Amino acid sequence: MPITSGDEYIQSLRGRKLRVFLFGERVEEPVDHPLIRPSINAVAETYELARREPELATAPSSLTEIRVNRFLHVTESVEDVVAQNRMQRRLGQLTGTCFQRCVGMDAVNSLYSVTYDLDKKHGTAYHDRFKRFVAEMQKENFVIGGAMTDPKGDRGKGPSEQADPDLFVRVVERRPDGVVIRGAKAHQTGCVNSHWIIVMPTMRLTKADRDYAIVAAIPVGDPGLTFIYGRQSCDTRALEGGAIDAGNAQYSGQEAMIVIDDVFVPFENVFMDGEVEFAAELVERFTTYHRRSYVCKTGLGDVLIGAAATIADMNGVAGASHVKDKLVEMTHLNETIYGAGIASSHESKPRPAGNYECDPMLANVCKHNVTRYPYELARIAQDLAGGLVATLPSEKDFRNPETGPLLEKYLRGRPGVRTEDRMRMLRLIENMTLGRNAVGYLTESMHGAGSPQAQRIQIQRGMDVEGKKRLAQHLAGVAPAPADAEPAAAPIASLDAARRKRA
Amino acid sequence: MPITSGDEYIQSLRGRKLRVFLFGERVEEPVDHPLIRPSINAVAETYELARREPELATAPSSLTEIRVNRFLHVTESVEDVVAQNRMQRRLGQLTGTCFQRCVGMDAVNSLYSVTYDLDKKHGTAYHDRFKRFVAEMQKENFVIGGAMTDPKGDRGKGPSEQADPDLFVRVVERRPDGVVIRGAKAHQTGCVNSHWIIVMPTMRLTKADRDYAIVAAIPVGDPGLTFIYGRQSCDTRALEGGAIDAGNAQYSGQEAMIVIDDVFVPFENVFMDGEVEFAAELVERFTTYHRRSYVCKTGLGDVLIGAAATIADMNGVAGASHVKDKLVEMTHLNETIYGAGIASSHESKPRPAGNYECDPMLANVCKHNVTRYPYELARIAQDLAGGLVATLPSEKDFRNPETGPLLEKYLRGRPGVRTEDRMRMLRLIENMTLGRNAVGYLTESMHGAGSPQAQRIQIQRGMDVEGKKRLAQHLAGVAPAPADAEPAAAPIASLDAARRKRA
Amino acid sequence: MPITSGDEYIQSLRGRKLRVFLFGERVEEPVDHPLIRPSINAVAETYELARREPELATAPSSLTEIRVNRFLHVTESVEDVVAQNRMQRRLGQLTGTCFQRCVGMDAVNSLYSVTYDLDKKHGTAYHDRFKRFVAEMQKENFVIGGAMTDPKGDRGKGPSEQADPDLFVRVVERRPDGVVIRGAKAHQTGCVNSHWIIVMPTMRLTKADRDYAIVAAIPVGDPGLTFIYGRQSCDTRALEGGAIDAGNAQYSGQEAMIVIDDVFVPFENVFMDGEVEFAAELVERFTTYHRRSYVCKTGLGDVLIGAAATIADMNGVAGASHVKDKLVEMTHLNETIYGAGIASSHESKPRPAGNYECDPMLANVCKHNVTRYPYELARIAQDLAGGLVATLPSEKDFRNPETGPLLEKYLRGRPGVRTEDRMRMLRLIENMTLGRNAVGYLTESMHGAGSPQAQRIQIQRGMDVEGKKRLAQHLAGVAPAPADAEPAAAPIASLDAARRKRA
Amino acid sequence: MPITSGDEYIQSLRGRKLRVFLFGERVEEPVDHPLIRPSINAVAETYELARREPELATAPSSLTEIRVNRFLHVTESVEDVVAQNRMQRRLGQLTGTCFQRCVGMDAVNSLYSVTYDLDKKHGTAYHDRFKRFVAEMQKENFVIGGAMTDPKGDRGKGPSEQADPDLFVRVVERRPDGVVIRGAKAHQTGCVNSHWIIVMPTMRLTKADRDYAIVAAIPVGDPGLTFIYGRQSCDTRALEGGAIDAGNAQYSGQEAMIVIDDVFVPFENVFMDGEVEFAAELVERFTTYHRRSYVCKTGLGDVLIGAAATIADMNGVAGASHVKDKLVEMTHLNETIYGAGIASSHESKPRPAGNYECDPMLANVCKHNVTRYPYELARIAQDLAGGLVATLPSEKDFRNPETGPLLEKYLRGRPGVRTEDRMRMLRLIENMTLGRNAVGYLTESMHGAGSPQAQRIQIQRGMDVEGKKRLAQHLAGVAPAPADAEPAAAPIASLDAARRKRA
Repeated sequence: MPITSGDEYIQSLRGRKLRVFLFGERVEEPVDHPLIRPSINAVAETYELARREPELATAPSSLTEIRVNRFLHVTESVEDVVAQNRMQRRLGQLTGTCFQRCVGMDAVNSLYSVTYDLDKKHGTAYHDRFKRFVAEMQKENFVIGGAMTDPKGDRGKGPSEQADPDLFVRVVERRPDGVVIRGAKAHQTGCVNSHWIIVMPTMRLTKADRDYAIVAAIPVGDPGLTFIYGRQSCDTRALEGGAIDAGNAQYSGQEAMIVIDDVFVPFENVFMDGEVEFAAELVERFTTYHRRSYVCKTGLGDVLIGAAATIADMNGVAGASHVKDKLVEMTHLNETIYGAGIASSHESKPRPAGNYECDPMLANVCKHNVTRYPYELARIAQDLAGGLVATLPSEKDFRNPETGPLLEKYLRGRPGVRTEDRMRMLRLIENMTLGRNAVGYLTESMHGAGSPQAQRIQIQRGMDVEGKKRLAQHLAGVAPAPADAEPAAAPIASLDAARRKRA
Repeated sequence: MPITSGDEYIQSLRGRKLRVFLFGERVEEPVDHPLIRPSINAVAETYELARREPELATAPSSLTEIRVNRFLHVTESVEDVVAQNRMQRRLGQLTGTCFQRCVGMDAVNSLYSVTYDLDKKHGTAYHDRFKRFVAEMQKENFVIGGAMTDPKGDRGKGPSEQADPDLFVRVVERRPDGVVIRGAKAHQTGCVNSHWIIVMPTMRLTKADRDYAIVAAIPVGDPGLTFIYGRQSCDTRALEGGAIDAGNAQYSGQEAMIVIDDVFVPFENVFMDGEVEFAAELVERFTTYHRRSYVCKTGLGDVLIGAAATIADMNGVAGASHVKDKLVEMTHLNETIYGAGIASSHESKPRPAGNYECDPMLANVCKHNVTRYPYELARIAQDLAGGLVATLPSEKDFRNPETGPLLEKYLRGRPGVRTEDRMRMLRLIENMTLGRNAVGYLTESMHGAGSPQAQRIQIQRGMDVEGKKRLAQHLAGVAPAPADAEPAAAPIASLDAARRKRA
Repeated sequence: MPITSGDEYIQSLRGRKLRVFLFGERVEEPVDHPLIRPSINAVAETYELARREPELATAPSSLTEIRVNRFLHVTESVEDVVAQNRMQRRLGQLTGTCFQRCVGMDAVNSLYSVTYDLDKKHGTAYHDRFKRFVAEMQKENFVIGGAMTDPKGDRGKGPSEQADPDLFVRVVERRPDGVVIRGAKAHQTGCVNSHWIIVMPTMRLTKADRDYAIVAAIPVGDPGLTFIYGRQSCDTRALEGGAIDAGNAQYSGQEAMIVIDDVFVPFENVFMDGEVEFAAELVERFTTYHRRSYVCKTGLGDVLIGAAATIADMNGVAGASHVKDKLVEMTHLNETIYGAGIASSHESKPRPAGNYECDPMLANVCKHNVTRYPYELARIAQDLAGGLVATLPSEKDFRNPETGPLLEKYLRGRPGVRTEDRMRMLRLIENMTLGRNAVGYLTESMHGAGSPQAQRIQIQRGMDVEGKKRLAQHLAGVAPAPADAEPAAAPIASLDAARRKRA
Repeated sequence: MPITSGDEYIQSLRGRKLRVFLFGERVEEPVDHPLIRPSINAVAETYELARREPELATAPSSLTEIRVNRFLHVTESVEDVVAQNRMQRRLGQLTGTCFQRCVGMDAVNSLYSVTYDLDKKHGTAYHDRFKRFVAEMQKENFVIGGAMTDPKGDRGKGPSEQADPDLFVRVVERRPDGVVIRGAKAHQTGCVNSHWIIVMPTMRLTKADRDYAIVAAIPVGDPGLTFIYGRQSCDTRALEGGAIDAGNAQYSGQEAMIVIDDVFVPFENVFMDGEVEFAAELVERFTTYHRRSYVCKTGLGDVLIGAAATIADMNGVAGASHVKDKLVEMTHLNETIYGAGIASSHESKPRPAGNYECDPMLANVCKHNVTRYPYELARIAQDLAGGLVATLPSEKDFRNPETGPLLEKYLRGRPGVRTEDRMRMLRLIENMTLGRNAVGYLTESMHGAGSPQAQRIQIQRGMDVEGKKRLAQHLAGVAPAPADAEPAAAPIASLDAARRKRA
């Protein structure tokens, strides 16, 4: 029986006896924990959107011949890749935070082609295994989390060179029917509220790293997993009761460290095992999808622009030219992010495996702008909010019979605006620029899918500087015209295509 | 007999006895004028590209059932709009300057749908007329220039309010078979090297401006036209002989003022006449296409990046980390422009007339970035070039037997680099950042297709701030959830679609 | 007996029975409240610095003929103004937050000259009164808070036009020996830990606003005052026990709303009463001092740069060229702020009253950069910190016997770095970029001493655009040379001087 | 007889039979060459300013006991250093270009202390020699040019490692009474219009580079010197006759390559000879002065702001809010440059030699902003100018009887503005953003006194990252409080002081 609604999804998470730790204590039932629940609500909204807008959030799957949640779908056309972006922006608009399912979606799509290529080279059978796994997920309508980032230890050293070999996830034992793995994955988005997790290597591997070249699917309920929940700015406001001070009481993201303590994975759930030369390939394809997935932040940007416009209106300054201009600037930056992301999706090309993959240059450009512009939007939003965004007394002071009336009297905005509404809007802006969802809107924008320098490296690799030099040399009269058959600086050439050409 | 090559095109421009003035004198034959010729070469390259890469630079036309130059093509699919952008970038790469044909292309496409809508409302017959005109242009393979920008005089006043009524182009006489028009069009890109010019209104008109609501095609050879050629930075270097100091000796842009002194236009070449309410509509559709056309500047950006990389290499510092990082930054900015532009094209929607029009929000975002980033690329290119880019002696000093050997000795770069090649590369960078093609790469990037504030106004109109406010209010708990059926902040909603919805 | 140490200062705050509300409850003794105490510690450090570095943090006062804390000192030379900036940066370095005493210092200095000019015009005796008041403060070594920002209500209306006349502080009753005032002051920095508060008008007043033109000193212990403590991001971490998660356990800022409920002020503590034309003057002089006081943020910037450098080192990437480059960029921006601020101080001019006032143009430029660069420093710091800055588990998870060893194992950085130290450094960066002191480092940088638009207005007023136009017109040959006697665009001309010249 | 006016200065340059080459030909008399003359006019203005505003542009010299031009003055107080900046800004305002005398001024001041320290260490007598030389210059009121930048050849190699040993200036022969030097100095600002040139090493030298450690004064008229004049954008407009198209007909900068072909220098004019360890020291002191001297560009910025304001006014849009806002932004950036520069001067410290030297950190920060902000000011100025700035026909077209009236009619701005005046203002903006003085305002801002990376290296050296780390570690609880006696991150610590402390 597949999950068909947000409620059913939430129900499906109960009773799993997960080893979740938070504030030094084991959490009995994460679903009912007020600090964790908003992150579950955000994922639930991905189910609800699929119900309300099936064109947007579901797609017919050739694997199962049924219509599946788009987060579980293997792209079969350019339109499928583009639709992911539209869905992501919409969910960003609806939740105002990270809804956590993109990692799984992007892992599924990158593994789809990597397992195919892997089999082609090694005669292995990963691709069929993987299709079976995905088909099952689609039928159950499960949430898959992707786990890539190892703790890394000394960054000057590779996995097999670390003092502690567990600092990257690895196979510690091989059995006839599967492997046992150990290690940890840091700051994993949306794991406690997933059903399955796919563990993947985090970087280029060498021959010495053979045991680290492991891709495996693990059920979240596996007793060998421990989840240590990460703190977020202002996270405990969710524990205070009241609904205002949290800013966005309903939705939040979730980040946890997953410790994998000798978990057995049967071979049917293993999708790479030792083929070290495909680790970098997988990372690159995954980040190509995933950096473009950061289009989701334009949905959050829409919320923040709306909040800034609302508070300006409540303050009675919506008509000031500098206010209008700042909203335009916010929009311009937000749409600049969107442009590169959706362009990357539109420029998708099919892999030999049949799935479609977006353009890597534009994906990296999209993500790189995401490491800059949300911070600028946040800055402008704080500008428009006024200082009260950081000095507002607590909801309890508003409820207190002595101070409440004073605040009601003195914190009134323009006529016709309820003081509480103004307070709520300020708390939303605080939430997105300093508070809990600032983690999703800012810090995750910086580091998710790779820190800024990672994008710069990819841009450098894909920028075809030699082709560009030939263009300049031709016009300067230093060299003959570049051969026309080979465009000197194809702006959208996939890194992969370039590699094929060289081979 | 259609024009089939760059040479034939150049030949077709001869002997037209145009009234072209330059440096206070009438130019006998523009084709042979060394200052004008590079701008003709750039247009010739649009013919040559069509020969070499027909997939890129031509398209089958339903109007004429023949394959036509893409600059004359009415878009019949999303792919057609996207292909325009690819062609534009390629031509930017090949010429390193403005190749001047986009205005005509974008005018044709916007008039195609405007004349259709105009007929629908007024029962006129402009659309068929216009199709016949375009078909003829396609068959002859002519260059069409678009002329939109009136001198405007006192910007605080509309056309009919000016002290001098001629400050906007207008109908001064109506005859049974056509109209007589008068006025001027300022800084017209690529007119002396066009075959026909389409005159269009430049702004929203009111009922009082009826005589100004005129769209008309005029052959460039009409004796009522006077072309006063604009100066560009360093333009006279083309007159010095030598090929180095010009920087890009082969290609340049062209800007001229066209004075229209009572030119008669037969009705068959009139495509709007008095329907004032369609003036703003035409401007908006034209600028939507045209702001996205500024993707061409990423082709120039490719050249400049290539030049910066080459000079760094010639200086022996290509390996320095800050040099590599600056090239990445240039590329990132350049591709950010490209992303929004190509995304706008990919998000094209059909008009009722059948042609496809790109997304207005992303088109404006593209152009707005074009008003910023080329200046930053130019700054970084000057950084990488070193001070010599602005202190290099003239080519003649290199040819002088006394000073030549001294310069050869002292301006040598890293071993293996010819001093003259280094000099050529510096001159190309000077050309694009201070010199003649800086006009096309910088100033035209600022003002072409509308100055920055024009984009901000369009972004403001299209940003759906009310929808965004509803998103924020919902999450802050101030208002109920926005109706799901109506996405609150559709990121790619066309302005036009929004208008239709409201109607 | 004057206060001579931080401890004595803290002691002096006890037992005042203030009406302080926090989280809906009255606080028994603010000094002992763990959430409030760090803000008191920050002020205590101003006393300690005066002990340790008297040259920096004290100055001889002509008023009292004793050496006084610099925060209570009336500037008697350019060097005095400059020394304020040096002290401010040092305290920012030592506390990593807002130490809250600048408002009082700048209020004292601006009132010193305003009361003088006021007496000159009106024959009043405010100046002597004010000198006596300041002398007493110096002798007791008290902390003075300045209270300027009224709640403002409908920003489209002036004080006397509001629906509720109390939305700006005003005189509600006049008695033979003094006045009774009512109203509120919003987001007041450092009030609960002050001894006295000086209430001042917040904006230009008209004749109708006579009752609002009131400047008065009130003891913080006055029973008519209610303090409603503002929430800050992550404020409750101070209540959790433990010292790590707070990030900067020792120091914080403090913002509260002060409600003034019919407080009687004897005339000896009234320094303006009805002279509406001096309200704007006071605001301008105060903001001139105070915008330059934001040099303090460069001290916080030093801490953040140090934290970013430390975490990069702990992560093992201190040698990466992009890391070093980011630290340079942070420093460059931080010193750019400092440059304009210290320049403003160096360019101080004496007022007729004898005190020295800094340059207004450069003060506004300093503050305007403060509304931009700390956000960029915060962004880069988050970049260098890595994603862990927002996903780190709580201190309690580190202390838990089950999860502690796991975190110890998996969150290890480069060899030789204690995991707890890495955690502490990440928490400090979180504290300054998202957490409690992000309020002081970011939001207060935006709005303190006036929001960005306020600086732009002052820059516009002081920029002498007419003088600059004359320079350009002269060089363009449009106009004769500007008279040499009158520098056309005096870069450092005080607004006030310009006013005098016109008068 | 000292030179006492601009005219006398110009007269003093005549008849020197310099070997100046321009456009491949030897220039008979540079003073009368229309392309060279504007650069001479700019220097003449430094004499005129000294006449009109002696307080600003002259100073009493202890060396000669007379009042001397400030460009020849050795700073004797902080005020002297500050006054240099004021004079520089004023001259930038008056000429709108580089007035070329700062190199000499900064060379004199840095050599003053370096020769002193050199003698202290080596027992040489350079300092007295140098004082005699400067005294003579002061008495004659001569212009001194400073020549530092060697051609450098392969930048991966030092002077003595180059294939051609002449790529850095060096001693080729030692005689009993002096030395013979050979080499070249690239892009020398203001040399043909100087009386003397001081040649200095350009970088850190090693023991192997002994012959390159040479500082020598040479009269410009020495027959061993050849000057090859550099081209500037639009330079030939000065040859066209007419005064409009040049934009700034009266003033320009000057850059030339100086080839030194075995020039004999008597020992009395040698101020360093072989003491390699002082080469880097000299470069650092010189660049410390000189990077702060770039405050001059704020004077050019004043002109450009004025031009932008004027053209906006002429276009009739001066009241538009975005126009006003752009002028404020230009001013803000311009004053930000000024702030760091004047702060560096105010923070000057005396050298043991007795002269005052500005703060190195703030000097580098000033110059680094100069490599960024003038480009942004230029961009905004082009925005405000409108497209006509790059499409305006030539002055000759305005003078032509046929086209003149057409341009007069169609290029009219708002009522009351002469078309010619509008044209002149546009040409001035073109001159400063694309044309001849864009070289001085932009490219020289980038590379003069060291390219951007050079400043970043100095900022890195001076930023005391270890001190800043201690601050952070203390607040994070990782380390004890930094010793109070030693401020951890002295913001204004001179590099030199730090060096002394370590020694």
